[in-house]
Amino acid sequence: MVDLSRYNRGDYDPGRGPIVRSLWFFVGLPLLRAALNPSTAVRVWLLRLFGAKVGRGTTMKPGMRVKYPWRLKVGDFAWIGEDAWIDNLALVSVGNNAVISQGAYLCTGNHDWARETFDLRTGPILLEDGSWVGARAFVGPNVVLERCAVAAAGSVVTRSIPAFEIHAGNPATFVKHRVVAGDSWVAVSKGAV
Amino acid sequence: MVDLSRYNRGDYDPGRGPIVRSLWFFVGLPLLRAALNPSTAVRVWLLRLFGAKVGRGTTMKPGMRVKYPWRLKVGDFAWIGEDAWIDNLALVSVGNNAVISQGAYLCTGNHDWARETFDLRTGPILLEDGSWVGARAFVGPNVVLERCAVAAAGSVVTRSIPAFEIHAGNPATFVKHRVVAGDSWVAVSKGAV
Amino acid sequence: MVDLSRYNRGDYDPGRGPIVRSLWFFVGLPLLRAALNPSTAVRVWLLRLFGAKVGRGTTMKPGMRVKYPWRLKVGDFAWIGEDAWIDNLALVSVGNNAVISQGAYLCTGNHDWARETFDLRTGPILLEDGSWVGARAFVGPNVVLERCAVAAAGSVVTRSIPAFEIHAGNPATFVKHRVVAGDSWVAVSKGAV
Repeated sequence: MVDLSRYNRGDYDPGRGPIVRSLWFFVGLPLLRAALNPSTAVRVWLLRLFGAKVGRGTTMKPGMRVKYPWRLKVGDFAWIGEDAWIDNLALVSVGNNAVISQGAYLCTGNHDWARETFDLRTGPILLEDGSWVGARAFVGPNVVLERCAVAAAGSVVTRSIPAFEIHAGNPATFVKHRVVAGDSWVAVSKGAV
Repeated sequence: MVDLSRYNRGDYDPGRGPIVRSLWFFVGLPLLRAALNPSTAVRVWLLRLFGAKVGRGTTMKPGMRVKYPWRLKVGDFAWIGEDAWIDNLALVSVGNNAVISQGAYLCTGNHDWARETFDLRTGPILLEDGSWVGARAFVGPNVVLERCAVAAAGSVVTRSIPAFEIHAGNPATFVKHRVVAGDSWVAVSKGAV
Repeated sequence: MVDLSRYNRGDYDPGRGPIVRSLWFFVGLPLLRAALNPSTAVRVWLLRLFGAKVGRGTTMKPGMRVKYPWRLKVGDFAWIGEDAWIDNLALVSVGNNAVISQGAYLCTGNHDWARETFDLRTGPILLEDGSWVGARAFVGPNVVLERCAVAAAGSVVTRSIPAFEIHAGNPATFVKHRVVAGDSWVAVSKGAV
């Protein structure tokens, strides 16, 4: 039987001490999420201040949420939408020109449901260049969206999506290939056309 | 390859200038969303002030969100639930006696994933009289819920739902016909009984 | 045709008078939800003050929401995650060592879509000992998660889940049996091994 009085975080390391974590929780995160702050620049500044690597030309919207900035990498010209929730106990890496749309939830934590101690399991999420997590989509731990992969709006993604594929549904499954103008040689090599 | 530094909004027109949009963002919307304001009357007044057409006898709950009030029409005795999110870059029209339940998300925006410039695409959403968007459902652009159609709780709807049909799942598919007492002649004409 | 001007709440009884409900809405609930309050102890105290039965050793996170505390029972060492939304018009009972993960929504209300008066229907939700509602999952009225049952992250659950079964998807369906170390005799008796 599950016994959460013996919950086992194992050797999980949050990556920063209690002072930095408290500063993020009580000061940084509320400013990041603030609905009345429309400024991407302030968000980028805050995230970098707490250890995130953020490229140039990004767009970051009100209501977005990041668990641990020091476990976040965001590339050039990436977008993070309103109320997007990056729950990054483990590394979340957002590539160049990658998009996380509004209300999406990126979940890097899980529990070993086969153990009475419900052991914590974490895994990173990697969004490669040009990939897109649609609005209100869910992405689980250890998922990779390869180059230009798409998780459709509302999809629940627990397995990685190959490059230039569009997955949708719950559980998300292959729907079609994505042919981006100028990339047709890639699509051809994948058998899409 | 997607290149968001060349993102193309095309000829998208938000419908109001920066002053009205800022007033809505900084003043109107926070009052609309306010968790501590239980008053439908204040919400209706705010939405009308910013250009929405709202009928009589509506119910509007705390936490609801509207992108552009001037692109919203709500009929008589319609309900909009807690934390319902109407992201109306394009027109959202809610019929008489239509219901948007708590936590539902109405999405009128998309992007052309086949273009390097990720062109913005918007489309209206039409909820006809007596239709119902269930709790936590997702409704995409260009979707019509015809008269008395139902999108079940948690469903992800990207195609229109015919009159008196109930769709559920992700992607949402037909589940059964809806026979409303007093409307049986309609159901009969649709072959439901 | 649906006519919400004649909406029928039937004999629904919220269980407390307008003064207690107002105190909860305007004072208790905002403190419960407060993003800046990391304290489980304050949440437990608030919920008990308003009539909830809460065991010892629970964990309750910021952003969680409860409609009516007097219709909530939480066992020992149970967890309720960030932004979990317990919309308990009817009783929600969370067993010992049971978990409601972040962003999950427990919905106890429905409407009779076959009636013009859209009659309110409510039903309880029972999460038995050791069961787990995953992140962003939806659980509908009259659902029971039996002992150690799991509703996977993002699942939409409208039918009860038998003991030691894992259901996923929308609609949620059986995926596999859950064998918890030390409980193998139970799993054996269920035919899992």
